[in-house]
Amino acid sequence: MTFYKAKKIVIVAEKILTTKICDIIDQNGAHGYTVVPAGGKGEHHTHYTPERASVVADFANVKIEVIVNNKSTAEDIATQILEECFVNYSGIVYLQDAEILRPSKFEDE
Amino acid sequence: MTFYKAKKIVIVAEKILTTKICDIIDQNGAHGYTVVPAGGKGEHHTHYTPERASVVADFANVKIEVIVNNKSTAEDIATQILEECFVNYSGIVYLQDAEILRPSKFEDE
Amino acid sequence: MTFYKAKKIVIVAEKILTTKICDIIDQNGAHGYTVVPAGGKGEHHTHYTPERASVVADFANVKIEVIVNNKSTAEDIATQILEECFVNYSGIVYLQDAEILRPSKFEDE
Repeated sequence: MTFYKAKKIVIVAEKILTTKICDIIDQNGAHGYTVVPAGGKGEHHTHYTPERASVVADFANVKIEVIVNNKSTAEDIATQILEECFVNYSGIVYLQDAEILRPSKFEDE
Repeated sequence: MTFYKAKKIVIVAEKILTTKICDIIDQNGAHGYTVVPAGGKGEHHTHYTPERASVVADFANVKIEVIVNNKSTAEDIATQILEECFVNYSGIVYLQDAEILRPSKFEDE
Repeated sequence: MTFYKAKKIVIVAEKILTTKICDIIDQNGAHGYTVVPAGGKGEHHTHYTPERASVVADFANVKIEVIVNNKSTAEDIATQILEECFVNYSGIVYLQDAEILRPSKFEDE
């Protein structure tokens, strides 16, 4: 089978932003996304050792991942999430390369 | 230390497929895999806003990740999972580049 | 917006190592990290089919992810975790490429 170049968008955000982020993903034509529970430490959450176990255990964040077969769609989604979600809330968004089978499954709708 | 090129295989699937997918990974000689709870939206699960919170929260899917030090092993695993698991069930599989230490730990068995 | 090259460090380890690994990440100047619950099979945990469901379900491991905008910081963190954590405990660490916005957010402190 042939593998095709694709882009993965990864977002780590507070749980309360899930719906807003998923709406942005949907509106940009992506076919789906994966949501994983996440804890951790970010810029606005400088927890120190005593609280660390609970920070890690509470999974108050989500990690959302999207695959699109189009670099510019990935960049649009990342930029829009940054501008609309991460001005008032902490969070990160980044892109990674991926190789997919069946690229039509990841085309803009 | 020296870093070596490797391939990461990422699979997102319904939880019921976990054993089947792990068997395919094992049979292809990979040394291990990581399983993470996952929710989200896929092609056959077009949930809309009212149900989205529960879709995200129920984690009815799994994300399985495997590192192999060999591109063709990665492609074989991805192709086999697609053909044997994702004809009747929804799911995605993709590859990514990775850099590892201690490559012998990731060799085919 | 402009995207900048960055490195992602991914660590999969037993839960008991979380604090030690997060300390190494902090001491190397990274701004944050993401922690996700993980199960799976590793080199020292060759569980076979009867136990697999519980291995996958117990999420006794963690997956920790860090983004840094500097290849040598990423390699330092990965090497230090390998040497200080994975001699006596099983676990893996690997690097991946990423593209970030706002690189100053990921600079060494």
